[in-house]
Amino acid sequence: MSLDEFGLVARYFTRPVPERQGVGDDCALLDVDATTLALTTDMLVEGVHFFPGAEPDALGHKCLAVNLSDLAAAGARPRSFLLALALPAADPTWLEAFSRGLFALAQEHDCHLIGGDTVRAATRGGPLTVAITAIGEVDPGMVRGRAGARPGDDIWVSGWLGEAALALAVRRGELPAEALGAEAETCFRRMDRPQPRIALGRALAGLATAAADVSDGLIGDLGHILERSGVGAEVIWDDVPRAPAFAGLGTIRQQHCILAGGDDYELVFTAAPENRDAVRAAGARSGVAVSRIGRIEAAHGLRLRNAAGASIGDTLKAFNQFPT
Amino acid sequence: MSLDEFGLVARYFTRPVPERQGVGDDCALLDVDATTLALTTDMLVEGVHFFPGAEPDALGHKCLAVNLSDLAAAGARPRSFLLALALPAADPTWLEAFSRGLFALAQEHDCHLIGGDTVRAATRGGPLTVAITAIGEVDPGMVRGRAGARPGDDIWVSGWLGEAALALAVRRGELPAEALGAEAETCFRRMDRPQPRIALGRALAGLATAAADVSDGLIGDLGHILERSGVGAEVIWDDVPRAPAFAGLGTIRQQHCILAGGDDYELVFTAAPENRDAVRAAGARSGVAVSRIGRIEAAHGLRLRNAAGASIGDTLKAFNQFPT
Repeated sequence: MSLDEFGLVARYFTRPVPERQGVGDDCALLDVDATTLALTTDMLVEGVHFFPGAEPDALGHKCLAVNLSDLAAAGARPRSFLLALALPAADPTWLEAFSRGLFALAQEHDCHLIGGDTVRAATRGGPLTVAITAIGEVDPGMVRGRAGARPGDDIWVSGWLGEAALALAVRRGELPAEALGAEAETCFRRMDRPQPRIALGRALAGLATAAADVSDGLIGDLGHILERSGVGAEVIWDDVPRAPAFAGLGTIRQQHCILAGGDDYELVFTAAPENRDAVRAAGARSGVAVSRIGRIEAAHGLRLRNAAGASIGDTLKAFNQFPT
Repeated sequence: MSLDEFGLVARYFTRPVPERQGVGDDCALLDVDATTLALTTDMLVEGVHFFPGAEPDALGHKCLAVNLSDLAAAGARPRSFLLALALPAADPTWLEAFSRGLFALAQEHDCHLIGGDTVRAATRGGPLTVAITAIGEVDPGMVRGRAGARPGDDIWVSGWLGEAALALAVRRGELPAEALGAEAETCFRRMDRPQPRIALGRALAGLATAAADVSDGLIGDLGHILERSGVGAEVIWDDVPRAPAFAGLGTIRQQHCILAGGDDYELVFTAAPENRDAVRAAGARSGVAVSRIGRIEAAHGLRLRNAAGASIGDTLKAFNQFPT
């Protein structure tokens, strides 16, 4: 479906909710006694979100990772998850590997499978479909969504962006694997086994004014923050970190993957300039690099500039034409 | 998949969980401060759980109803739900009707949509797939699963069983609609718009020693209670209530639909004999008939008898051969 179609769908499912329950941004929020729960659900469909025959260990990891990444954006501590599976067949080899990948990541984040549903896929051929609902807890007073960015705030990203998009380009045959050299394996790992930035998300509690995970691409996900916060931004392309895999690649490929490539599951967030040292310390404490890539402005829209201050905004216009 | 295959799947996804989190029966349980949450997830796939082209208003109702039915079995008060949808297309007419059916039932039970995910189906042709996670609250000290049935307890069912199975038989062309006479519409309504027994489930708090919703058929779902409670049971076929639709139908058809037919979403539960009046009062307060159909015994297994006490156990054996 197109972006317009997703907007249409959203219209039919938007209804008022009572206080102490909220349709959040990356997560929904639910107050239970003195605790705020963050809840998120993601559905992955064979042939849409992953290739038929995807390695089941990596798939188990990824299906949980994309949900935990939403918890990370909300600054939540993972607690439990429920798993709904439509399976083409009950293949022990596949089940063993899928559950191994799933539980390895779950254990790493002390997140427990508490319920689920297993059903037959529509045909023996599939499509394999995985829907996970993850539940986390947010520290009291530390609820954070996408709506809190203020003019003057710095814009930050964690880690490196675009490596998953490079891996996808190779898998689709649009780019020879040789173009990535020794970095090819890193890129495939980024695509197949994204690491949800749970530690960083929690370390940013009280520091980040808004946050989102980069699942659809930096421009798209930062765009959600700008829209919800009612602000605009300037992003300095030269300040956006480049992974080593991009060393031998042209600017267009770099910009496409780094600015509009999805599936990295890093965090993009905003914070007041007086908290720069604290943000860097939060990154260091979490073992994740953080890079300052621009700032929030009152004027709506996203302005992309190079280090000299010249607009490279036409790049953005072109990206709006890319299917996501 | 066969029952054996589902057992195989379960084996790979069973892991220890910490205290205050529990893989429950109809629901998972999660303690948050002084509150116990009941959580459940159900996935419905086009061509498996509903016919292609199913009326979207009824489908929206049913997808939420099957989840609320799990909350009813646990005695929980519905609070929120999350909706994951794989859509073949963004058709406004379909979306309007589906959301209308969904929200009408949600509103009736004061249950709020707080989050979700909409994705493309594998192909424009589908399969449409709906996964809902519902969240409810259980009153302190009133947690109830399938494991509490004790020898001597009465076995009860709510409402009438088997009407949904009759409707399915007609839709599959196995039974002419005329055989149901004026009751055909009631049967279709039972299949398409099941009413989760939320009020009864809550009214049974402190009375029912074990409960399950009848989604897979009375024998199967009562069987789960017996297995989890480590007990057996005697069920008196003549005491199992007959809906008017069965008036002109033979015994085999009656037994097949009433004992083994799924999709009714009534409750089967156990309670001590001294609470008979209280159970009847709970039914009356909830506007649902309740019928006593047998009793829990220490000897394992399920014994089906007629009013004269003669075994009709061969019937049960035959049902084990039916695909579910």
